[in-house]
Amino acid sequence: MTLEKGEVGVFALGGLGEIGKNTYCIEYKDEIIMIDAGIKFPDDEQLGIDYVIPDYTYLKENKERISALIVTHGHEDHIGGIPFLLKEINVPIYSGPLALGLIRNKLEEHHLLRTTELNPVQEDTVLKFKHMSIEFYLTTHSIPEAYGVIVRTPEGTIVHTGDFKFDFTPVGEPANIAKMARLGEEGVLCLLSDSTNATVPNFTISEKEVGQNVEDIFRKCTGRIIFATFASNIYRVQQAIDAAIKLDRRICIFGRSMENNIKIGLELGYIKAPPETFIEPRMINSIEKHKVMMLCTGSQGEPMAALSRIANGTHRQISIIPDDTVVFSSSPIPGNTLSINRTINALYKAGADVIHGKLSNIHTSGHGSQEEQKLMLRLMRPKYFMPIHGEYRMLHLHKELAVNTGMDPENIFLMEIGDVLALKKDNARHSHRVPAGTVFVDGIGIGDIGNIVLRDRKDLSEEGLAIVVVSIDFNTKTLLSGPDIISRGFVYMRESYGLIRSAEKKIKGDVINLLNSKENVEWYHVKQLIIEELSNHLYRKTHRKPMILPTIMRVNSESQQEQE
Amino acid sequence: MTLEKGEVGVFALGGLGEIGKNTYCIEYKDEIIMIDAGIKFPDDEQLGIDYVIPDYTYLKENKERISALIVTHGHEDHIGGIPFLLKEINVPIYSGPLALGLIRNKLEEHHLLRTTELNPVQEDTVLKFKHMSIEFYLTTHSIPEAYGVIVRTPEGTIVHTGDFKFDFTPVGEPANIAKMARLGEEGVLCLLSDSTNATVPNFTISEKEVGQNVEDIFRKCTGRIIFATFASNIYRVQQAIDAAIKLDRRICIFGRSMENNIKIGLELGYIKAPPETFIEPRMINSIEKHKVMMLCTGSQGEPMAALSRIANGTHRQISIIPDDTVVFSSSPIPGNTLSINRTINALYKAGADVIHGKLSNIHTSGHGSQEEQKLMLRLMRPKYFMPIHGEYRMLHLHKELAVNTGMDPENIFLMEIGDVLALKKDNARHSHRVPAGTVFVDGIGIGDIGNIVLRDRKDLSEEGLAIVVVSIDFNTKTLLSGPDIISRGFVYMRESYGLIRSAEKKIKGDVINLLNSKENVEWYHVKQLIIEELSNHLYRKTHRKPMILPTIMRVNSESQQEQE
Repeated sequence: MTLEKGEVGVFALGGLGEIGKNTYCIEYKDEIIMIDAGIKFPDDEQLGIDYVIPDYTYLKENKERISALIVTHGHEDHIGGIPFLLKEINVPIYSGPLALGLIRNKLEEHHLLRTTELNPVQEDTVLKFKHMSIEFYLTTHSIPEAYGVIVRTPEGTIVHTGDFKFDFTPVGEPANIAKMARLGEEGVLCLLSDSTNATVPNFTISEKEVGQNVEDIFRKCTGRIIFATFASNIYRVQQAIDAAIKLDRRICIFGRSMENNIKIGLELGYIKAPPETFIEPRMINSIEKHKVMMLCTGSQGEPMAALSRIANGTHRQISIIPDDTVVFSSSPIPGNTLSINRTINALYKAGADVIHGKLSNIHTSGHGSQEEQKLMLRLMRPKYFMPIHGEYRMLHLHKELAVNTGMDPENIFLMEIGDVLALKKDNARHSHRVPAGTVFVDGIGIGDIGNIVLRDRKDLSEEGLAIVVVSIDFNTKTLLSGPDIISRGFVYMRESYGLIRSAEKKIKGDVINLLNSKENVEWYHVKQLIIEELSNHLYRKTHRKPMILPTIMRVNSESQQEQE
Repeated sequence: MTLEKGEVGVFALGGLGEIGKNTYCIEYKDEIIMIDAGIKFPDDEQLGIDYVIPDYTYLKENKERISALIVTHGHEDHIGGIPFLLKEINVPIYSGPLALGLIRNKLEEHHLLRTTELNPVQEDTVLKFKHMSIEFYLTTHSIPEAYGVIVRTPEGTIVHTGDFKFDFTPVGEPANIAKMARLGEEGVLCLLSDSTNATVPNFTISEKEVGQNVEDIFRKCTGRIIFATFASNIYRVQQAIDAAIKLDRRICIFGRSMENNIKIGLELGYIKAPPETFIEPRMINSIEKHKVMMLCTGSQGEPMAALSRIANGTHRQISIIPDDTVVFSSSPIPGNTLSINRTINALYKAGADVIHGKLSNIHTSGHGSQEEQKLMLRLMRPKYFMPIHGEYRMLHLHKELAVNTGMDPENIFLMEIGDVLALKKDNARHSHRVPAGTVFVDGIGIGDIGNIVLRDRKDLSEEGLAIVVVSIDFNTKTLLSGPDIISRGFVYMRESYGLIRSAEKKIKGDVINLLNSKENVEWYHVKQLIIEELSNHLYRKTHRKPMILPTIMRVNSESQQEQE
């Protein structure tokens, strides 16, 4: 199945469900426009994986049809996939200068900079492509230059909100509510709107309020301040800097992403601070402690980040001293709670005071809550609605919100990754499916880790393994050496001498019996026997089931060997 | 160092910091009294471990001095370690009948029932031991028969609060505040008080309020209700049962621990329901859907629990049908958020409505918040204070609360596991340290998994492994076969033919060069070479570092082999 003549196709390769992150496509005739190309960080069960990206197969197969990649803003979950995408297809990128700066850094690291066309846009930019054209409107989010994307198609206007909140007292530019209302008046065929906070009632608090609370906390600190937040939250970083300057504190930066973001922020004027505000780490000890603020990464308890190393006493330059106050200006991403708590425990033990959590109101989300999602729906008054960005439970609740604002449930589409919504002026339908799914990036391999490798990792991580080596002359049916058992992650070999020896003895008997029992014993009979018997034996003794890996060396009298 | 003459020693083997769970000891002269013996469930980094218990070495070495194990209440983190403890030492157990019933179940499973002395106590029981005696006071918690323990020692009274909240409208018996106040008037030498909710301001909401909210939600349900909570939360289970009976719904129970707890609760009269209330799973489909409630385990998203299997469509008897409402009457334990969210997503996708989270007030903690912890301090007015139960950050905040109520910080002791607080009538000091730490239980092995095995599991889980097998005749310095490489959890062998073959070729060359390069090549030279060269080679090609396990078969011309 495919699109019918004159239909506009809208689909996600990431950013719906729990797969990949933020890659949307709008397709009309022989043209595809992409919006965002993010990564997702792996969850606990994706063992050893570095990143998760969407399956780009459909884009590879249709690369000559792709006119542009539009990037709504510069966060990792919207730009992190770009280097992996560009290894497959070359596509011109359009975004605000800040996101472009961050993208440029990435492309440099991946040696892709020179081959990529990077085009800056602003709110009044109009991009005309073959059949479709693109406009922008400014929105508020936890980074400057966050745009909603207006896609003009022959069938009508499609709006992709990007990430947004309605912050009426923002730190940067206000959202262009007038332009959103105008779009609604002109008529929006389909709205794709951010569902991240669909489970959160009410209105998200303003960044300005956070800034005031940060300043209030700083005022009470008598020693050094260590301020940890997301490096990409340029507004928060600026507010911490403002408070430090106001209270006559010099600022020292820790963590590579913090350095990068501040550098680009300063260049573009989004971060404002006189150059003498910043000091080098080695100068910290020569300044009175109530005159110092350290800005650092690690607010999610990431073990290698600056803050965790400071907490554990393994940082090269900084250790906790009396009167230090550590401020976590962030909220825990689900799955990080344990490591954040570990960092907080370590900081308290080292003698620091720690301020964190919702109670102090020193963090706010970049995403609008339920009232803001409803406001967006009221402004845009779309004919059709596709909730985007979020797990199924969020999309589901976002749909309920839309129904509460009066939308017909029939006009709301909860899509899965790869499912195509086919739009016409006066019709919308669930159409076909394009290839889509999860691709793991591990080291420099993209997609070469599949579910089998992950399942092996999971099995290995829970029970360890036992390797069994035997040499057999299948001609004379003699066991020449072994079985020798080596284990890792199963029991500590040095302390389990008895267990291993008894298992070797048992398997030796089993193999000899097998060799004597019938005419044509093959290596795979031995392999199967070892797996079964050793597995049962070890389970009886330990109630554990390590992975068993037998290695059968086939030896004949001429000492030639073959291994299976 | 050790206790001085006439000192009372107080220490934790679990329940402080993040190690083990809830094992406290009070020691005077030749007598030790234990309070609680719980387990902790492993965190994400304790791969494949079933439980974590404290190191019982000190108790083993002093077993003839232990007079009693006093159990405050029947939750896993207070009774789960008992079977493991009883494998080391035999000790009479004293607790309320409900906890005894749950302990009895455990001991039966471990074939320890007949050798253990189980003594029921009530609030007015007085237990006299050699030098110390024990009394109890009733407290409110999320299970009936939760006691605070009063330890009378020759130097003064020590109070261990157990787990508590101050619920003024409880579902069961109210707390005996008068007895607590009387203790304070008589004089408490040292208070050991529950710190679990020290980070939570204000007062914990009452169980009665939760019951009302549960009933309100039930009233709105038009289809079946699936109610998930902790099986051990007998009050919550009773309230769900009450609401079901009131609204004329029959009840079906899913999950073994839910069945166990309800059985014991019915026997002891803590759960009240006419027998005809309960139905078998096979009867569900013959009853109208608005007349059914299912009570089940799995509110933490545990993959094998009833609820997860219902959500994923793999439950043998129940699948989601239209109008089903699933109520999560629980809060996520940190570290479980992702699996709970996965379950919620699956339930929505299957078509159920899902009610959960703080917003609906359908769960409350069993632990008192900051105001209740202060109330306890005000009632007991202890001379010395040792915060217990909790991570360091909680103990730290509990100390701050005590200071706010007027205690001298010098009289408050933040102890580590194994650190002994030495008490006299008019003195308290940090004394010596007894052996203490974390012991892992995996399968039937207790303590045979150490940090090396866990580190191996972690390495294996992140990068997988590559096994290399070669046969060498060290006399003639000939490579007879191999190297053959087998990998698991590293790359998918079938799709990585080229990578593996190129690595084998490279290692073959290296080994031959080594054999030709000098006079006395030993197996460990070959082993070292393979580890280094293969590791570097694979890192260059993939940026991954699998564990390398070389197996060198030593073969001589008589075909005798030896493996290292």
